[in-house]
Amino acid sequence: MREKISELLKLKDPAFIESVLAGFIREELQKAGFSKAVVGLSGGVDSSLAAFLAVKALGNNNVIGISMPYRTSSPSSREDAKLVAQVLGIEFHEIDITPQIDAYYSRFQEADPVRKGNKMARERMSILYDFAHWKGALVIGTSNKSELLIGYSTRWGDSAHDVNPLGDLYKTQVWQLAEFTGVPERIVKKKPSADLWPGQTDEGEIGLTYRELDQILIGYVDLRLSSAELKKLFEPKKVERVLSMVKRSQYKRKLPIICKIAQRTVDKDFLYLRDWGL
Amino acid sequence: MREKISELLKLKDPAFIESVLAGFIREELQKAGFSKAVVGLSGGVDSSLAAFLAVKALGNNNVIGISMPYRTSSPSSREDAKLVAQVLGIEFHEIDITPQIDAYYSRFQEADPVRKGNKMARERMSILYDFAHWKGALVIGTSNKSELLIGYSTRWGDSAHDVNPLGDLYKTQVWQLAEFTGVPERIVKKKPSADLWPGQTDEGEIGLTYRELDQILIGYVDLRLSSAELKKLFEPKKVERVLSMVKRSQYKRKLPIICKIAQRTVDKDFLYLRDWGL
Repeated sequence: MREKISELLKLKDPAFIESVLAGFIREELQKAGFSKAVVGLSGGVDSSLAAFLAVKALGNNNVIGISMPYRTSSPSSREDAKLVAQVLGIEFHEIDITPQIDAYYSRFQEADPVRKGNKMARERMSILYDFAHWKGALVIGTSNKSELLIGYSTRWGDSAHDVNPLGDLYKTQVWQLAEFTGVPERIVKKKPSADLWPGQTDEGEIGLTYRELDQILIGYVDLRLSSAELKKLFEPKKVERVLSMVKRSQYKRKLPIICKIAQRTVDKDFLYLRDWGL
Repeated sequence: MREKISELLKLKDPAFIESVLAGFIREELQKAGFSKAVVGLSGGVDSSLAAFLAVKALGNNNVIGISMPYRTSSPSSREDAKLVAQVLGIEFHEIDITPQIDAYYSRFQEADPVRKGNKMARERMSILYDFAHWKGALVIGTSNKSELLIGYSTRWGDSAHDVNPLGDLYKTQVWQLAEFTGVPERIVKKKPSADLWPGQTDEGEIGLTYRELDQILIGYVDLRLSSAELKKLFEPKKVERVLSMVKRSQYKRKLPIICKIAQRTVDKDFLYLRDWGL
């Protein structure tokens, strides 16, 4: 079973996946009447891959990359964001978010790093949407399946977007596809970090390596193994940690709840075109 | 049929609706392990009603009201937000969002009012979530059914929240319930405005009065009348305008789309507890 799991995490045909994801971006934008996309470039592998896929889908004249560093962001992240834009030949903007963030937190000097990190993620979302409105574009999502399943993202922040090509790829699969697609090696190889405060690493915060995390997640979600079966294959404490993160973050993967009091309610029974009787 | 529509828009038993909505807030917070709520107070009737319901549900010690004016916000809106907090006896904060908004737009002097309005709505969302994290609270939604159905809101802005008691009440029903629940008369009676720029009124922007809008919407959504049937009852141009707003805003009522490539995908087939095999 462990071999089956490792096999399943390998992208057998990255060229095919790449073309499916690029086609998805192109078609979804077309359906919505758009031909341009905005991508937030953090210098990390997810947003770099998203930008590469967007260029494959739309051409480099139709993709706008935006880097949004804060004063504590690592200079190498800023360099890597710029590098992606250069390699792809896309329109590029760097917007320093320090003035906005610091203006707000001047009232709350004692705010903890999680508060500030979430505020930054939401500020970046609002800048991406500001550019999208300005340029007549949609916002490409960069959340991968590992993050989505354990809720390792800010609600209405980095997880908010219009169209997400990466949401069904585990992080270790993002690495494989990024390498295949031509994302610069130093970006594929570096330690993943949300870069919300100095020294932060994803794996440090999550408490597992992405390799361990993805094996447990794909066993649980795609192979439908039970918690007991997983505990025979992996360290029981790690299995419990992962499953508890999946459960606790379920709300982030759903629309916020509305109280039903009428015949048909927006989030419950007015969902599909067939309901519309047009 | 017009009479039936008018009847259906009348809240027959506002006391019952009030208790259902307060119970909803209390239970949803409890299920998520919270006892406190944060409400953004704009001085308008929706957020005032939401605050009144939250206090009914949780008690005034557990509700925090936050007013977030911009320098162009009407002084009477600020007064009305404060008034609600005073009447309810809840913790109240006023956070001026001008420094953050102006810091960003100093780069884009030419930005149109829609861009700025959306940025303000998202800034307010991020402040509500900042307070929610700080105070250990959830964010109460204030979007009503009329707004949700025509998409008259900012995605990831005023439409982003944790728990929404108003989402199944049309605007004209919000007025009725607000009056019943004790929201100050001057708030119930004033012209609705998003107050994103001076002189803005909802009805001016939407192109119909809320009374007309709600009649068409309830006919269409709750009574399942066809477009042809509606056009016999109401001005055909107005019917078309409303139905086109409903269609064009469908994306705002759904989660952003993820490209499916694996066996089970976050937004498609990994949705329910019964899928989890825990």
